[in-house]
Amino acid sequence: MEEKREEFEEISPSDFFYRNRDLAGFTNPARSLYSAVREFVENSLDACELYEILPDIVIGLTEVETRSPSPNIYKLMVADNGPGVPQEVIPFAFGKVLYGSKFTLRQTRGMFGLGGTMAILYGQITTNKSAHVVSSTGTSKIYEFTLSIDILHNEPVVLKRRVANNDSGWHGTVIDIYLEGDYMKASSRIIEYLKQTAIVNPHADITFFDPYGRLFKFDRNVAGLASPPREVKPHPQGIDVEMFRRLVFFSEETNMLDFLVNNFQRVGRVVVNNFLKKAGIPPSKDPKTLNRHEIVTIVQKMRSFYGFRKPRADCLSSLGEDFIIAGIQREYNPEFVTVVMQPPSSYSGHPFIVEVAVAYGGNIPSRTGGLLYRFTNKIPLLYDEGSDVAWKVMRTLINWKNYKVNIEEDPIAVFVYLFSTKIPYKTVGKECVADRPEIEREMLSALRKACRRLRAYLSRKGKAERKRKKLEIFSKYLSQIARFSTSLAGKEREPDVTPLLRELEVG
Amino acid sequence: MEEKREEFEEISPSDFFYRNRDLAGFTNPARSLYSAVREFVENSLDACELYEILPDIVIGLTEVETRSPSPNIYKLMVADNGPGVPQEVIPFAFGKVLYGSKFTLRQTRGMFGLGGTMAILYGQITTNKSAHVVSSTGTSKIYEFTLSIDILHNEPVVLKRRVANNDSGWHGTVIDIYLEGDYMKASSRIIEYLKQTAIVNPHADITFFDPYGRLFKFDRNVAGLASPPREVKPHPQGIDVEMFRRLVFFSEETNMLDFLVNNFQRVGRVVVNNFLKKAGIPPSKDPKTLNRHEIVTIVQKMRSFYGFRKPRADCLSSLGEDFIIAGIQREYNPEFVTVVMQPPSSYSGHPFIVEVAVAYGGNIPSRTGGLLYRFTNKIPLLYDEGSDVAWKVMRTLINWKNYKVNIEEDPIAVFVYLFSTKIPYKTVGKECVADRPEIEREMLSALRKACRRLRAYLSRKGKAERKRKKLEIFSKYLSQIARFSTSLAGKEREPDVTPLLRELEVG
Repeated sequence: MEEKREEFEEISPSDFFYRNRDLAGFTNPARSLYSAVREFVENSLDACELYEILPDIVIGLTEVETRSPSPNIYKLMVADNGPGVPQEVIPFAFGKVLYGSKFTLRQTRGMFGLGGTMAILYGQITTNKSAHVVSSTGTSKIYEFTLSIDILHNEPVVLKRRVANNDSGWHGTVIDIYLEGDYMKASSRIIEYLKQTAIVNPHADITFFDPYGRLFKFDRNVAGLASPPREVKPHPQGIDVEMFRRLVFFSEETNMLDFLVNNFQRVGRVVVNNFLKKAGIPPSKDPKTLNRHEIVTIVQKMRSFYGFRKPRADCLSSLGEDFIIAGIQREYNPEFVTVVMQPPSSYSGHPFIVEVAVAYGGNIPSRTGGLLYRFTNKIPLLYDEGSDVAWKVMRTLINWKNYKVNIEEDPIAVFVYLFSTKIPYKTVGKECVADRPEIEREMLSALRKACRRLRAYLSRKGKAERKRKKLEIFSKYLSQIARFSTSLAGKEREPDVTPLLRELEVG
Repeated sequence: MEEKREEFEEISPSDFFYRNRDLAGFTNPARSLYSAVREFVENSLDACELYEILPDIVIGLTEVETRSPSPNIYKLMVADNGPGVPQEVIPFAFGKVLYGSKFTLRQTRGMFGLGGTMAILYGQITTNKSAHVVSSTGTSKIYEFTLSIDILHNEPVVLKRRVANNDSGWHGTVIDIYLEGDYMKASSRIIEYLKQTAIVNPHADITFFDPYGRLFKFDRNVAGLASPPREVKPHPQGIDVEMFRRLVFFSEETNMLDFLVNNFQRVGRVVVNNFLKKAGIPPSKDPKTLNRHEIVTIVQKMRSFYGFRKPRADCLSSLGEDFIIAGIQREYNPEFVTVVMQPPSSYSGHPFIVEVAVAYGGNIPSRTGGLLYRFTNKIPLLYDEGSDVAWKVMRTLINWKNYKVNIEEDPIAVFVYLFSTKIPYKTVGKECVADRPEIEREMLSALRKACRRLRAYLSRKGKAERKRKKLEIFSKYLSQIARFSTSLAGKEREPDVTPLLRELEVG
């Protein structure tokens, strides 16, 4: 048994994602092109939002080499007017995996500190060309880097660095990379992605020059900005042992009362005192002296203690009813639309909000199973619908018959919006959301509420329909009867049946 | 703009997966339980296979704490008679993310060097209990470790280590962890997983004690072993620039001819000479002197050069037609079943084989869209079917009507088996396979072939059905006519119509 060796080794995070790029949405050339566009656009939107800048984003995609057989080689350029990246950070932010600014509790589109770098990595391994980044934070200098990634060691390699004067005070970031792609297959998804992104981000101005020379322009249509996402402390419900231990490790408080009040959201001194009494922990206890067993007990009690207020949702920026309805009406002009906004909830210490809209009729096409649109933190999700919690809720947990809907034929569309400081994506490519029980519950509850309203509408419509038919028959026959009786009685003027009909209409 | 800071930081790989455990299949308590069982079982199967040991795997799952509301706490124990893990490696193999033995080109069930450690990490963060590993490689000692993971730094923490004498020469590994779970919801999937795993791994003996005290035993039903998976060199078609550069970096060859012959599979000196001539590279050139541009050119030419032989498939261990048919017949007893085995192909330098079976009738239930069973490297995939390339092929690329199948109603099941030194999973949890164009093409081609055979069968069946009906009618009327003519002629003995009917039957 000694000859065959099972050899063990360690690999770097960038090597891991290089070996497994399918994990990050870089599968076939079409989808990789889509993923690259997406990651850069979302980085731009996030950066602008944090600094309260109205985003101007320009995307240019040009084919630089046509190959047969495909894939072709493209140059992708994404420019924004965002806050810029500090020059000392640029090599790491773009050339090192698991390095980024997204590892906080804040509502952001990006989640993994990975996407932009993955796009650069993908470009590098498919073309061996370096990436090019120009950025300024609005200081007197503009920095320009040409860089690639040392994948084996997960380190950036700066090939060229130039500094220019920034006389106009410009701030923003322009990145360009070369990559393999298939725009013929990717174009409809990329355009759909930008369109839907523009709908849920009306404060953004997005311009796209495509490889066919077409220009797609999605203009800003609100002048103002939602308030920027705020970083928050964790909520006690749903915290885990690891997080609790980290908080203890980094804390400076010397007693449990202060420790809990300062490190968690939504807990005042009164609530904490109540909680500690229930948990049997003295308020004066030094958190650093907690043993393993005590930590497990506290975490467990925190989850089941009902005295905490709900997680704060003011750190979340949702869309709101009017906004959602306006968007759906512009697109589909449905005969019925309703929005349900669930109260904030939380999973594993992360607050989240679910909004669900159901629309019926109008320009909504009939599709077996109905149409589903998914949005997370104001980005549309277009791939892998079948693995999403929203799909599970809509397709397997709702009994549409209960709501007088024939889901195989009726023109119905469901829109599910999820907002959270942490979206539990199932893939690094952010294509679908996991069925965390808390999220599934809120989505199901929201969809049920929306469906009840739809049922009420369909009932009214059915009743009105039946009444209309009855009236139609009456109005036809009553006037004929009137005419017939008139001639039978040898009279000239028919009696007026309108008052009679009106009575039926009211009744 | 200076007050708000976008703070950049680096996190460790284990911290990344701790923060994003949904990525690795650890979403809700039910699925996490399923994922943990799966990861350990697959590690055991892989290790046994590499060392040509007939696997005996025992899984014990007990509920140690019932909580209300759920999830409960379980103890999971998985024991195997595998080769064991060398004691100096144990802490890293079980307590460090991105450390493992799976980073090679070899057909293994595990792919990421991540699963076992993720299960331990999940157990730790949900229960704060340490993991316990007992292992021996068959030497005179048995090693026992109690360990946990320092998630922030991605380092194992050994809490206890004991050494015992191994008088019996036992080899194998026993691991136990505590974790949150929901067996009530997970049980059907776990049992289905083990059942399907046993079907495609008939050389394994799998025993499962479940928390309800039930015993599931899947006995070995072949005595022999398939040959163990072999590590292979990359195939020149589909290699990328990064991999080529690494090979150059680690190579000792001083000329291109030797370099290519020694570092790639399926290339002899004649083929390499032809290739180098076409690519315009002198065979005597030192690979270390290749510049960026030359590397890109070579890689590109390698992909489009048709002189290479197909990737070697003898490193892959597929199931084979007889085996697949026997399994399907035992389970479904269909009226028709056919298997198509595609010739080996490759994507990005990785060889793969696709086998597809289509079964019709028998005990196969009618399901809208048909039933799909997916297997990769001899493990069943049960989740996220809708995001799998096999689903895409079966549900969107095949026009079932062309094959006389009403996919909404007919009792049809499709079985897709994929074998590769590298399965391009879309999720770290290994639930679904990406639609790499090469794989999609082979699956589609195989399914089409199988469907054509099904169509031929259904046509024959239809023809036979029509003939049978015709014959039925003839046999009914012919004998009546015979009887009638007999009595009309005043005779006693009716003529024998059988020869006439037989003639119709043959015609």
